[in-house]
Amino acid sequence: MTLPTHLPYSGIATFARAPIVQPDGDWRATFAVLGIPFDIALGFRPGARFAPRALREASLRYVPPFSDLNGKVWLDPAHSSDPLFVDAGDVVLPSLEPELARERITQAARQVKARCRLPVFLGGDHSVSFPLLRAFHDVPELHVIQLDAHLDFTDVRNGTRYSNSSPFRRACEELPNLVHVTTVGLRGLRHDPEAAQAARARGHTLVPMEEVEANLEAIVTALPEGRNVHLSIDADAFDPAVLPGTSSPEPDGFTYALALRLIRGLVRRHRLVGLDLVELAPNLDPTGRSELLAARLLMETLSEVYDAGH
Amino acid sequence: MTLPTHLPYSGIATFARAPIVQPDGDWRATFAVLGIPFDIALGFRPGARFAPRALREASLRYVPPFSDLNGKVWLDPAHSSDPLFVDAGDVVLPSLEPELARERITQAARQVKARCRLPVFLGGDHSVSFPLLRAFHDVPELHVIQLDAHLDFTDVRNGTRYSNSSPFRRACEELPNLVHVTTVGLRGLRHDPEAAQAARARGHTLVPMEEVEANLEAIVTALPEGRNVHLSIDADAFDPAVLPGTSSPEPDGFTYALALRLIRGLVRRHRLVGLDLVELAPNLDPTGRSELLAARLLMETLSEVYDAGH
Amino acid sequence: MTLPTHLPYSGIATFARAPIVQPDGDWRATFAVLGIPFDIALGFRPGARFAPRALREASLRYVPPFSDLNGKVWLDPAHSSDPLFVDAGDVVLPSLEPELARERITQAARQVKARCRLPVFLGGDHSVSFPLLRAFHDVPELHVIQLDAHLDFTDVRNGTRYSNSSPFRRACEELPNLVHVTTVGLRGLRHDPEAAQAARARGHTLVPMEEVEANLEAIVTALPEGRNVHLSIDADAFDPAVLPGTSSPEPDGFTYALALRLIRGLVRRHRLVGLDLVELAPNLDPTGRSELLAARLLMETLSEVYDAGH
Amino acid sequence: MTLPTHLPYSGIATFARAPIVQPDGDWRATFAVLGIPFDIALGFRPGARFAPRALREASLRYVPPFSDLNGKVWLDPAHSSDPLFVDAGDVVLPSLEPELARERITQAARQVKARCRLPVFLGGDHSVSFPLLRAFHDVPELHVIQLDAHLDFTDVRNGTRYSNSSPFRRACEELPNLVHVTTVGLRGLRHDPEAAQAARARGHTLVPMEEVEANLEAIVTALPEGRNVHLSIDADAFDPAVLPGTSSPEPDGFTYALALRLIRGLVRRHRLVGLDLVELAPNLDPTGRSELLAARLLMETLSEVYDAGH
Amino acid sequence: MTLPTHLPYSGIATFARAPIVQPDGDWRATFAVLGIPFDIALGFRPGARFAPRALREASLRYVPPFSDLNGKVWLDPAHSSDPLFVDAGDVVLPSLEPELARERITQAARQVKARCRLPVFLGGDHSVSFPLLRAFHDVPELHVIQLDAHLDFTDVRNGTRYSNSSPFRRACEELPNLVHVTTVGLRGLRHDPEAAQAARARGHTLVPMEEVEANLEAIVTALPEGRNVHLSIDADAFDPAVLPGTSSPEPDGFTYALALRLIRGLVRRHRLVGLDLVELAPNLDPTGRSELLAARLLMETLSEVYDAGH
Amino acid sequence: MTLPTHLPYSGIATFARAPIVQPDGDWRATFAVLGIPFDIALGFRPGARFAPRALREASLRYVPPFSDLNGKVWLDPAHSSDPLFVDAGDVVLPSLEPELARERITQAARQVKARCRLPVFLGGDHSVSFPLLRAFHDVPELHVIQLDAHLDFTDVRNGTRYSNSSPFRRACEELPNLVHVTTVGLRGLRHDPEAAQAARARGHTLVPMEEVEANLEAIVTALPEGRNVHLSIDADAFDPAVLPGTSSPEPDGFTYALALRLIRGLVRRHRLVGLDLVELAPNLDPTGRSELLAARLLMETLSEVYDAGH
Repeated sequence: MTLPTHLPYSGIATFARAPIVQPDGDWRATFAVLGIPFDIALGFRPGARFAPRALREASLRYVPPFSDLNGKVWLDPAHSSDPLFVDAGDVVLPSLEPELARERITQAARQVKARCRLPVFLGGDHSVSFPLLRAFHDVPELHVIQLDAHLDFTDVRNGTRYSNSSPFRRACEELPNLVHVTTVGLRGLRHDPEAAQAARARGHTLVPMEEVEANLEAIVTALPEGRNVHLSIDADAFDPAVLPGTSSPEPDGFTYALALRLIRGLVRRHRLVGLDLVELAPNLDPTGRSELLAARLLMETLSEVYDAGH
Repeated sequence: MTLPTHLPYSGIATFARAPIVQPDGDWRATFAVLGIPFDIALGFRPGARFAPRALREASLRYVPPFSDLNGKVWLDPAHSSDPLFVDAGDVVLPSLEPELARERITQAARQVKARCRLPVFLGGDHSVSFPLLRAFHDVPELHVIQLDAHLDFTDVRNGTRYSNSSPFRRACEELPNLVHVTTVGLRGLRHDPEAAQAARARGHTLVPMEEVEANLEAIVTALPEGRNVHLSIDADAFDPAVLPGTSSPEPDGFTYALALRLIRGLVRRHRLVGLDLVELAPNLDPTGRSELLAARLLMETLSEVYDAGH
Repeated sequence: MTLPTHLPYSGIATFARAPIVQPDGDWRATFAVLGIPFDIALGFRPGARFAPRALREASLRYVPPFSDLNGKVWLDPAHSSDPLFVDAGDVVLPSLEPELARERITQAARQVKARCRLPVFLGGDHSVSFPLLRAFHDVPELHVIQLDAHLDFTDVRNGTRYSNSSPFRRACEELPNLVHVTTVGLRGLRHDPEAAQAARARGHTLVPMEEVEANLEAIVTALPEGRNVHLSIDADAFDPAVLPGTSSPEPDGFTYALALRLIRGLVRRHRLVGLDLVELAPNLDPTGRSELLAARLLMETLSEVYDAGH
Repeated sequence: MTLPTHLPYSGIATFARAPIVQPDGDWRATFAVLGIPFDIALGFRPGARFAPRALREASLRYVPPFSDLNGKVWLDPAHSSDPLFVDAGDVVLPSLEPELARERITQAARQVKARCRLPVFLGGDHSVSFPLLRAFHDVPELHVIQLDAHLDFTDVRNGTRYSNSSPFRRACEELPNLVHVTTVGLRGLRHDPEAAQAARARGHTLVPMEEVEANLEAIVTALPEGRNVHLSIDADAFDPAVLPGTSSPEPDGFTYALALRLIRGLVRRHRLVGLDLVELAPNLDPTGRSELLAARLLMETLSEVYDAGH
Repeated sequence: MTLPTHLPYSGIATFARAPIVQPDGDWRATFAVLGIPFDIALGFRPGARFAPRALREASLRYVPPFSDLNGKVWLDPAHSSDPLFVDAGDVVLPSLEPELARERITQAARQVKARCRLPVFLGGDHSVSFPLLRAFHDVPELHVIQLDAHLDFTDVRNGTRYSNSSPFRRACEELPNLVHVTTVGLRGLRHDPEAAQAARARGHTLVPMEEVEANLEAIVTALPEGRNVHLSIDADAFDPAVLPGTSSPEPDGFTYALALRLIRGLVRRHRLVGLDLVELAPNLDPTGRSELLAARLLMETLSEVYDAGH
Repeated sequence: MTLPTHLPYSGIATFARAPIVQPDGDWRATFAVLGIPFDIALGFRPGARFAPRALREASLRYVPPFSDLNGKVWLDPAHSSDPLFVDAGDVVLPSLEPELARERITQAARQVKARCRLPVFLGGDHSVSFPLLRAFHDVPELHVIQLDAHLDFTDVRNGTRYSNSSPFRRACEELPNLVHVTTVGLRGLRHDPEAAQAARARGHTLVPMEEVEANLEAIVTALPEGRNVHLSIDADAFDPAVLPGTSSPEPDGFTYALALRLIRGLVRRHRLVGLDLVELAPNLDPTGRSELLAARLLMETLSEVYDAGH
């Protein structure tokens, strides 16, 4: 009889039951998880600060290895020489002080990135993508692929340049190596005209949600193969029916299957150098399915990265 | 740097931050909103009385003008000579007394209708559509287009003629100018045979949900162009996955996109004279996405009306 | 004026307002409902113990007869010589003692099965399908058709052979007459390789969710017509957007319409001898739509059985 | 080993597992329960329509007999010649029609009252106490003792004479035998001055909450012993900390112990002829403790009545 | 028959149905309400941003005038020459920028304070008390009386000087006229020793919760009569049983009655120049009783202020 | 400026941020925490399986050292030679198999107990106290002090001897060194007469809740000083108003202050050898205050143990 192991609700919750490390510790891993429980830069319903813990807990329903009905196995720690996963905990953030918070996020992200094949960042609101991207200042020709209902390329929103509406605007200003942004899933009702114009002027690719399904292949192949890509997944890219736990839902978004198809295509074609999942607000979904879906998506994405082998 | 404005959760909540008026005051506007917090005529789970306030709050995420990724702008108050929106508050209703309540609803609706291009009524359960429609007794050849999972054309339900199952039956009886009803999205399990027969005998158009998508164009063009239309949107027309906050959900309803396509077609082809959104029960959806979707739908509908210009 | 009857929230809740009987009482009926409020064999979020009562309450929105927009009537008690429905209550279960619980479930299921055309079992977690199936030991060439995100054919999970991951493994071991299992809707991430191999070795049909829609006809006709079928519906077969109230949701499952199409095909082609609905956890869905959908599904399934007449 | 019996969440929920009867059936019992799922006469948060079922379910944690730590046993069905409990279900109510509803409530209450030692009425909002009291028109010198945060003696509220603010005003007008009302627990902020004056003019006893504890004995002995008493318990008499599930909570109300002490004193001194518990709104308390407390209070009250023997 | 008026859930929600004014408008009033929906300076569970709207809605159950069982009337607008109440809306706040936010809060507070007898501020987290108090820089010998479980006198918390742990430290530093702070209800587990020492060094009065009841009179009379007092009520001063909707609850706090007794004593003895209620998080209390209690407390406090007449 | 540290919602949640150890690892500590996420032995509402994680998270608001308003410091890790806390994670439990589960609980408890001054066990339902107590078989003259609404000394409940109604009965049978049980807070309505008699026959002390406050000193001094005590705290000992998150609440229980006074007295007089907190069901309290109170109680209890020094 097999030995009992922890059921998903049992045991101290680290991501996929990975060992805990310090961001600046002495470790190497294929995938390293870092939480950024920061949500004071959003403009509607808070709660993304609770996402890193919720994702850790949800990940325990999806601990690798995975296997399909034919016995094919993915993401098998037993076949990996390196540790497959480590959990670097959460960035230690100050209260309130946004600039200091951004510094600490960038610093921890740099430390984690230097020690693993792919860092996996658990937001937090979308403003954290800016300090996270600063950790990639040394990546040649960096591309961002963003799944999102909103553009998040606004210069100034309501008196600030650092809200969750502006991360990619700031990143493009500060990172000369960030050459291109592809935003997929757009369907807000009040797109900032200046932001859209600025994005287009930079040559960014903007794909409204209603055009995604018909153009999936084209979106995947729009970039020449083998680019260095940071993938940023905003929870509100998803249809609120499948992922209601987010601050600013917009109807008619991604299903899980469609998002996975897009991500698979991108991951197989390009080299993922960074990955963040943001704007998940577990407190807004009492059914718990939002974090379960997000955790599964991360796991299947990482399986693809591992299989792609580049 | 732009001046800060209210975030959606800030400020006294009027619809789209419109100025407050009295239904019988001295004002003119393109769109005037009137709430009818009445829900004692439904037969299952109450809560629609809370909808007018919830819709006002949700509308603050969708305050016009709107703009697309190409910079096109809709519903721009700056380009409007008239005030675009006013909020006429809620009808002052008695406790319990249904007949008095209906009188007051009709009276307030008449007052509002007389002062604006299009009155927008926020229910309330579906029984309020009858007293609302009485305010349109003077509209020549009035058509009702109803998005609904249920027929709501029952003569008597459980001892009453004025429940949320009967508004259109009563309206057809009392309003000689109400010449036709189109009901789209039907998928209840216990359609009242007498009601269906009566509706068909009057020549009404009844479209089951499973036939909507394939026949969208036909539904839109079924009526000769330019009819005077009151549009009544029951929240349970929507799929409960996308709008769970309603008393009597039925599976497999409208997505947001499909509803919007239908409404756009209708609004462009006909002249909307009245609009109600009913049976939204915010207390039944702790994720808050039900009222956000409904508020966005109203805003996009009004954009179309404004653009249609008739 | 019609006499008032109970609204759905009124009156003691028996399934479809059926008379109450004892499982071993002196009665005959077309359909007999039996609840099994047992949920200690699942490995994640409990609550299925509350499903039998929740389904009884939800069934009151869908009390037969049903009628469509053309006046066609189904499941009309008035046209039935036998009582159409009885409610046999819940199995009286011990605390904690799993083996004793299984015995009592089998015994009560046998008693109910002997007195009706079709027993309808309301779980409980999926482990109850094993003791339920034992009541069908005397059915020649029994087939199981299972709608489920997971295989539930695991030999041993976490130290036990009787969890909700193993009911069909146990049933196949103990019931020589159980000749075949068809599992439709599979989409877990960690299918047990040994279980999948064992199922395939027995010739079971395993249909991943993404292949269901394209192969609906083939799934229905895979078995020669007229088989004796026990239909087991796991709530997690459904998309969590439409049925969030379940312990272990997996994204991208059945819509209501698709499930109904599949079930209709199966019911018309085969002879349903047993039906269970399991893993519904009403406590995990504060909107209440999960049990409403499940109750409606049961009612439409029974309409089909009744119409099929075999 | 003892035979298993139903756990509280198991089995069809009748009050205390009592047999089901029709209000006008052929039965006799000591206590008969009747539900009145009517809540359209309240002016704030609905949900009392769900109370009868919630109380039935909660009662299953408190099924008699009861026993203390010394082995003393109360309310033992085994020692009762008559059936101790029956459950007469809910009054069959029309939709919306308040007057018809009141008639049916009075009629069913009369039928139940005629067949038992003490009818136990489960509201419903407080407006139902008026039609319930009409069933006691033949009781000589009827006294009402009311536990309530509010006076409920208003003549007209917001256009109606039959809301949950007026039941005792109407009862005093229509029932010449209703000689006196004692209201205990008053602590609203906007007592209707006319109502207070009218109550005092009739000689009613009004006890503010802050005077209850110090005057408990005096309240009990204010009436000469042996009066015929209808006890009406409004859920908002309780402190919202201990019973949050009610439409209009007011801080600093009864604890359970204090309410029980008062009720015990009254029940031992007088003859209880009727009992109602109203304004319980289970939908407003997700912890479920409101209905558990109310069910326990009913059970302990009935124990006292049984012991008092008069 | 009296004319219907709005029920509490009806009508656009301004505080106590007061007219809306701009903070810098042309108006005078006895009481003016200003909301500060700012909650990014707290260190645990957000939600206080939703409090101003929730308090406005809850206030509608407690619209003056009030009257007791003897017909005595308080806070009667009919007997007031000035407008009794105005609602100045919420401060228009920037996203994220804490310093700019504090400036705007102070500015709006000054404007409101200059136009009324007593400004009533609705937080927001407790950090807003610092910018609010800056509006009282011109009040001679200002005293703060603070009801709170925590000291909120910390110099620096987790890298910031402006969190909700520091408002009174900052205020004492910047306002020479702030001569004394009385903090009542202390019961945290980790009082900052430096903060306690600093407060004592300034001569502040610190009263642990367990000493409040026995020393109520002493607390009230500790200050010489007639001081200018700003009263700051932290929602976590209350027992979480009576007010669960707050970020950082601590057991065994104020009951409503005890808080009201203390406040009455203070208000009668001193001159209230400012009043804030902070740290109410309506999203954390699904029963809604937290905001109802807070709204009632404000109303009864204002009644006392009005009666005191100074 | 102090360095930022984690806010309570940040960082991987171990109890009080303690280092993680294996139960059988190479470590020593003053206090060691072990979770037992087992809740299939209760008879009403499940959820205690979620308590160990919830308590870990809640403990992060109460990380020692603690300090009062006078600067006195408790439980200061800086002044401790040994590690003050370790977190031994949760017992690895099988699915369903109760006997195997009990074995593993006893084994892990023994391992933890052998390595620390005081093991702190986080249930789980109350059935876990039996396997936990087996780990204390070698403690001379063991006393159990139990805070509980219910006796939990039943021989057989509903077919099982191992439910959460029987832990102390089983422990007394199997542990000759368990000489005495004191149960404080009893207030169930259906005390098992046989259990009460058996407890009294063994000389146990049974204290009903209503006698606790008046007899606090007597309860504390009932045992001769210096006994070896295992303290078992059932969450339902508390008043449901202050701790609603528990399966089977009973009104009028302990306040936090009263429980703490009792525990302080006991801890100072006796030698605590074991401590468990059970029956906390975080899923039943959406306000989160239940686990916050329980975590604080544990922390203050441990402070007393540390100070007592024996």
